[in-house]
Amino acid sequence: MKSTAHNQEVAVIGAYSTKYEARSSKEAYEIIGEVASGVLKTVDKGISPEEIDLIIVSNYSDSFGNVLHTAPLVAEHIGNLGATGFRVENACASGGTAVYLAWKLLSSGLSRNALVVGFEKMSSQGFTSKVNEILMRTAGPEEYRVGAPFMALYALIAQEYMQRYGATEEDLALVAVKNHENATRNPLAQLQKKITVEDVLKSPYIAKPLKLFDASPLSDGAVALLLSSTPRRYTDTPVYIRGISLKHDHPSVHKRSDMAALEAARLAAEEAYRMSGLTARDMDLFEVHDAFTIAEIILYEMLGLAARGEGYKLVREGVTSFSGSHPVNPSGGLKAKGHPIGATGVGMVAEVYWQLRGEAGARQVNGAEVGLVENHGGTGGTSVVIILAR
Amino acid sequence: MKSTAHNQEVAVIGAYSTKYEARSSKEAYEIIGEVASGVLKTVDKGISPEEIDLIIVSNYSDSFGNVLHTAPLVAEHIGNLGATGFRVENACASGGTAVYLAWKLLSSGLSRNALVVGFEKMSSQGFTSKVNEILMRTAGPEEYRVGAPFMALYALIAQEYMQRYGATEEDLALVAVKNHENATRNPLAQLQKKITVEDVLKSPYIAKPLKLFDASPLSDGAVALLLSSTPRRYTDTPVYIRGISLKHDHPSVHKRSDMAALEAARLAAEEAYRMSGLTARDMDLFEVHDAFTIAEIILYEMLGLAARGEGYKLVREGVTSFSGSHPVNPSGGLKAKGHPIGATGVGMVAEVYWQLRGEAGARQVNGAEVGLVENHGGTGGTSVVIILAR
Repeated sequence: MKSTAHNQEVAVIGAYSTKYEARSSKEAYEIIGEVASGVLKTVDKGISPEEIDLIIVSNYSDSFGNVLHTAPLVAEHIGNLGATGFRVENACASGGTAVYLAWKLLSSGLSRNALVVGFEKMSSQGFTSKVNEILMRTAGPEEYRVGAPFMALYALIAQEYMQRYGATEEDLALVAVKNHENATRNPLAQLQKKITVEDVLKSPYIAKPLKLFDASPLSDGAVALLLSSTPRRYTDTPVYIRGISLKHDHPSVHKRSDMAALEAARLAAEEAYRMSGLTARDMDLFEVHDAFTIAEIILYEMLGLAARGEGYKLVREGVTSFSGSHPVNPSGGLKAKGHPIGATGVGMVAEVYWQLRGEAGARQVNGAEVGLVENHGGTGGTSVVIILAR
Repeated sequence: MKSTAHNQEVAVIGAYSTKYEARSSKEAYEIIGEVASGVLKTVDKGISPEEIDLIIVSNYSDSFGNVLHTAPLVAEHIGNLGATGFRVENACASGGTAVYLAWKLLSSGLSRNALVVGFEKMSSQGFTSKVNEILMRTAGPEEYRVGAPFMALYALIAQEYMQRYGATEEDLALVAVKNHENATRNPLAQLQKKITVEDVLKSPYIAKPLKLFDASPLSDGAVALLLSSTPRRYTDTPVYIRGISLKHDHPSVHKRSDMAALEAARLAAEEAYRMSGLTARDMDLFEVHDAFTIAEIILYEMLGLAARGEGYKLVREGVTSFSGSHPVNPSGGLKAKGHPIGATGVGMVAEVYWQLRGEAGARQVNGAEVGLVENHGGTGGTSVVIILAR
């Protein structure tokens, strides 16, 4: 990446989200249309469809939504077939990848205004084992072939981490409790209900040490963002991308040098911090990929909030709670806000956009000026880190 | 698109393809690995995996290959997890879209060397109606809902065209006969056998006026390309991208102002010709998206080879045959070479690369110096046109 190639500042100028739900009454193409139209109306000074020259759609699997070739569908829906569009997929990091590519194309001057749409309709497959099969397409071929579910792969990570550093099942439960508590303040969240540590500990083991309540739910939902390289034309309070990075690791857990790390996230954070000139301590809030509770604890360490092996102490001490010094997942996170895969990363950026503009309602982090998004795919084969600031 | 943003010349420096087959004995992740490793060995002066900083995977549906998150899989396979990767999808134009994005990111200086991998394993669903359902996810929502198959949508296009301009079913058959004849010279082709006009006319109607032999087959296959913004480091005979464009139209046939046109292809060709300073008459060969015979005839007109309503005369007169003045689909085209969807557009560029380097063996177009690729999605909702020259 040549520094000279990125010469335009890029900012988010609009965001729109459906509520995340266990089962939407709408088809995938309808929720796509809803957020694509909806986001245009959120721009403070207005934007016309003709000003949008780039459309990037984020979606995980067409086996969920039964729809492909969605970029021209979005272009048609907003009434501008002249925009250039395509869909991207990078497993659960598809949304972060879409924002990353929008930033690349805008910051280099190749495009001016980008509409990013993320969506997933996971309820389409019902409550069947087919859902697990579709999810496992993102894992390494060996993991897919033996039929390992995601819970088992994250259980390997959790076992390794807990044995090495002394974290307990209660620590994992505290992450779930915190994020459920946060979701009670978020009208967009799927699981707006408090739970207790005892609720988590009593929930059935799926793959020891992980229990049902350590996992994020299956979700339907869609989110749209507008990004611009001339943001002040459209709003007086844009939210700038100050640092951004996409990194990879081995898709299969067993191939990694440190099974209890999320190395792609560490590398992506390192690069994003360097770009922004900021550190973890400068962040007013974090939205991170807590598909399973253990991931959030390890991410504290990868993102530089805690030293290696000490992440679980942050949740014990309340540092990452809503009223703590470094709130993590004030939205409720994947755990309680929900995880409509293709929408997830886009929704994290939307959340930080609202927080930094002071528009997050009951879940507003007071005086938030800088926030970080971490969105990863599979068990960490891809990670996107984005630092946003007013 | 600011002209100043594209300041690097981009060229293809390597290409590798599996044979296209009705049923590959390999899994999707295996053919991905085969072509990713294979293409590295085709570079004249060699290239090391560390020099590749961008990986773009083209794939249509994970319902065919049962694999997602393929970019880090490719990165791991070639031994460079430091490259940035993602998958793109734009229906049957996914391959063209991948090359388009690689060109964008290389020409602007954002990346230096890109590995593009396209693949599809359509045999995974067997000979079932599920295949049609997966294919129709690319059509407009109304077309999907009523269960229209692609043949029926292209039949609407064919009926309109034939009634308006006087083309006959024999004219369509001549396209199939020509492309089958061409495929007999292509060891990579799926259907290496001659057919006659009578064979086509006797094949069963699927959706009148289209018959079984008017359609391309279902295919398994994968192709990889290497593109570079410093091509002469890697070869003395790079094949440059001189013009490239991606355009959209309404995904649904019935919403178009002219049902018998492929407007996105016309617009993309216009822009690509303008960029290159060349015209249709300058092209030594064309590889175009003949998913159905009628598409090739209409494309003659959209690409400027024939006046509107006169495309069918070219195939009657032999202008587009292998020994004609403007050979179209010397590879055999989608019709006879095959159509492994995510690989198709990547494979078209590979074919022109080999032709322009004089490496096309028995199917070599003598003295070919300039060639054009047209790759479209659905019934024409996206079209990518690429002009390549030595």
